[in-house]
Amino acid sequence: MTLYKQATIIGFGLIGSSVARALRENGVCEIIVACDADPDCLAKVQELKLADRCSGDAAEAVRGSDLVVLATPVGTYGDIGKAIAPSLDFGTTVTDVGSVKGCVLKALQPVLPEHVHLIPGHPVAGTEQSGPEAGFASLFAGRWAILTPPEDTDPDALKKLTRMWEAFGSKVEVMTPEHHDLVLAITSHIPHLIAYNIVGTAHDLEGVTDSEVIKFSAGGFRDFTRIAASDPTMWRDVFLNNKEAVLEMLGRFSEDLTALQRAIRWGDGETLFNLFSHTRDVRKQIIEAGQDEEAPDFGRPHDTATRK
Amino acid sequence: MTLYKQATIIGFGLIGSSVARALRENGVCEIIVACDADPDCLAKVQELKLADRCSGDAAEAVRGSDLVVLATPVGTYGDIGKAIAPSLDFGTTVTDVGSVKGCVLKALQPVLPEHVHLIPGHPVAGTEQSGPEAGFASLFAGRWAILTPPEDTDPDALKKLTRMWEAFGSKVEVMTPEHHDLVLAITSHIPHLIAYNIVGTAHDLEGVTDSEVIKFSAGGFRDFTRIAASDPTMWRDVFLNNKEAVLEMLGRFSEDLTALQRAIRWGDGETLFNLFSHTRDVRKQIIEAGQDEEAPDFGRPHDTATRK
Repeated sequence: MTLYKQATIIGFGLIGSSVARALRENGVCEIIVACDADPDCLAKVQELKLADRCSGDAAEAVRGSDLVVLATPVGTYGDIGKAIAPSLDFGTTVTDVGSVKGCVLKALQPVLPEHVHLIPGHPVAGTEQSGPEAGFASLFAGRWAILTPPEDTDPDALKKLTRMWEAFGSKVEVMTPEHHDLVLAITSHIPHLIAYNIVGTAHDLEGVTDSEVIKFSAGGFRDFTRIAASDPTMWRDVFLNNKEAVLEMLGRFSEDLTALQRAIRWGDGETLFNLFSHTRDVRKQIIEAGQDEEAPDFGRPHDTATRK
Repeated sequence: MTLYKQATIIGFGLIGSSVARALRENGVCEIIVACDADPDCLAKVQELKLADRCSGDAAEAVRGSDLVVLATPVGTYGDIGKAIAPSLDFGTTVTDVGSVKGCVLKALQPVLPEHVHLIPGHPVAGTEQSGPEAGFASLFAGRWAILTPPEDTDPDALKKLTRMWEAFGSKVEVMTPEHHDLVLAITSHIPHLIAYNIVGTAHDLEGVTDSEVIKFSAGGFRDFTRIAASDPTMWRDVFLNNKEAVLEMLGRFSEDLTALQRAIRWGDGETLFNLFSHTRDVRKQIIEAGQDEEAPDFGRPHDTATRK
């Protein structure tokens, strides 16, 4: 079902290239235009035949498109908005896939023309890898896509964008940018921050060598390094642009950690056991909600043939 | 290659049942005796035919065995040691698979007879699931097994136990209990503690509902719940028995987190970017060391057929 005539995707990394694949796979638009500042990336896009047209110039790339998707780090939105504003057609929908939403309206509303539909979005899906090769069409299937439309958003434009995500297999939820940034601070931003942090801590120890950390990482550490392998620029911009919510959640996390620290110091096994038991229920709910697999191997390939 | 005549495994959960499967699969011993305090567990062991003999009584179960493996939470070792001491044969090797090692000698050396070889051990491998059904023979393949023998350990007994882990496909490293507890505090204990902690933090928020935490967990949170789904009793005992090292590492983790918090508050993007970039190298080394898979999906089944 064709929803858009021509879609321009600016930023062809993991998410941008996955959107392109999903658009084509589900016949959501007729023409796909790829835009990326990195010539090597565009060469890869051409090699993989992910787009009908490629351009390094955003203003040129959006010409004639009725859908524009920003898939670059959120810190770049302001400049991109200024660059594309003059060449945006009347009634074009401009959306994005950034992990922070409050800053998107602040950056784009002042620079985009009145005659486009600005509807920020965020597909809560991804992997720890980056680049156009890393994307795949089914990345959004079964995941949630959050849209944060301004109050005066055109209902038809919103309906159309909703149907695009549904065509990708996503479930769509509409909320305010402020609430999005609070929810994602705890479900995504803080998990990434503490994963990045412990990898740093492990590196700086004098009593334990780096090679020991690597060798014995299967005890849990390696799973944090997977989360902490995500794109550095993207994550820097997330934390710089969701400061308040992240600091608020970080404060609560640290409070709770201090309480656990106290329980360990005083040998309060009951407090530890109660928390450790509760977390199993949360895990069960996530699996029941289809947001994770039950497979019991911390993410190693499920080679049941090797199981005896 | 048969190394032992009869092996008794006390505690038939994920690790104990995996040791039994690996012993049989690799022909390391002739007879396997299963011991567990839980009758339902023993019934499961019989149903799965994981042992030649089952017993709920540890003292009875170790009779005639030249290998005894403790695979219960470390907090139970003292009582089990007292119970089995009178019925241990001369020259029997008594080992364990606990995640903490300093406390093992303290608990067992005073109660076990002089005529047995006490060699504490720790296979750095596991999944987040529990129980005899969860185990599999290849769990230890490619992973490290750490042995912490007392200074006066019989070299032949140590060689034999080393060969058992090698027969399971493990690489063996010998170190002091103190060093083990320091290394594992950062590679396993702290990762689990902060994973448990953030699940608790997410549960206690008033601005964000539990159902929102579940729905949008694919942003990173769900990976923490996987780690935090491990056995509560086992982990309670780990923290109660590795207090000093865990508190030391927790102190360093919190210091570093405070520095990151400060970088976010002051918009210091360079500090964030530098840390976020470094962690990728660590990830690369872990994959090169064969301690994790490169598969880019945060542990979801690697169904490449769905990738376009």
